[in-house]
Amino acid sequence: MEREQALQMVRPQLTEHRYLHTLGVMETAIRLAEKYGADGKKAELAAIFHDYAKFRPKDEMRQIIKEQKMPAILLEFNSELWHAPVGAFLAEKEAGIQDGEILDAIRFHTSGRVGMTLLDKIIYLADYIEPGRHFPGVEEIREMAGNDLDAALIQSMKNTIQFLMKKNQPVFPDTFHAYNSLVKNKEGD
Amino acid sequence: MEREQALQMVRPQLTEHRYLHTLGVMETAIRLAEKYGADGKKAELAAIFHDYAKFRPKDEMRQIIKEQKMPAILLEFNSELWHAPVGAFLAEKEAGIQDGEILDAIRFHTSGRVGMTLLDKIIYLADYIEPGRHFPGVEEIREMAGNDLDAALIQSMKNTIQFLMKKNQPVFPDTFHAYNSLVKNKEGD
Repeated sequence: MEREQALQMVRPQLTEHRYLHTLGVMETAIRLAEKYGADGKKAELAAIFHDYAKFRPKDEMRQIIKEQKMPAILLEFNSELWHAPVGAFLAEKEAGIQDGEILDAIRFHTSGRVGMTLLDKIIYLADYIEPGRHFPGVEEIREMAGNDLDAALIQSMKNTIQFLMKKNQPVFPDTFHAYNSLVKNKEGD
Repeated sequence: MEREQALQMVRPQLTEHRYLHTLGVMETAIRLAEKYGADGKKAELAAIFHDYAKFRPKDEMRQIIKEQKMPAILLEFNSELWHAPVGAFLAEKEAGIQDGEILDAIRFHTSGRVGMTLLDKIIYLADYIEPGRHFPGVEEIREMAGNDLDAALIQSMKNTIQFLMKKNQPVFPDTFHAYNSLVKNKEGD
């Protein structure tokens, strides 16, 4: 699917603010793909569709998670997590995207997972550091992303886990296991 | 087993510094047991034996973990974690302690676990806040422990997780799951 066609499919699903965010993720993902040797077209498409389900009603997302037998534990955690796996499902169903790598990168862009692919990492990180993001520490991670993809990823997950812990909120296990797996790989560097 | 007999068994296993720490944990655990309605004698004995295996050689601990079919994942993580389950094993084998609650409190005093008993919580927290402990944030947790055992426990686990993340170290899954389970219970308060 070409960029313009993909953007036309996604735009009506998003607010203007979220559409601009998506463009930022797209540009950042393409840049990271070039730097780290990933497929630029896959990065582009995954980025464009990463928030495809962001504004679906909670009830619709809950129903899809149940009907598609996605991990039931999702329903025990913040609904902010749901749009990622639901988005992967709808990107296939409604937009006809069939590339498993692209769908996985959409599916895990919020939680991360153990054994993240290069494309998973790029979309996760692009979502975190695209130019429209402004929060304490983001500039540090932008700089890290220019030198060491995994280090930047670890830092972004640490920030996410700390952010949740500060609010006494539970942390989705995939995120925690992704952090552990990344720092363990790093030890072997 | 009476206090003096227990202390006499434990003392030769520990350095002077660690023995004084153990006395601090004992006093703190008895005080917490009284406050929160746990069995004071069990708290006393669990506290006295909590670091029983602290100075066993790593090779001996590794062997016990393997031979006793303890969770193999322990061996993938920092050996600082090993003395707790190994201590529970040796407290039974060498000191003849057979009370399951006491052994569990020793076993999980470093990692925590999902579904911690009142005694587990008391020993975990007493170990963290006994008067000999001096680190940033400990005073805050001492105060919390006087009002809300679970809140103090959550805060101590957050500190532990953040401490490990700051050093880019992996976090033992039981600790993370214990944190999640405690904050989820708290939400229902």
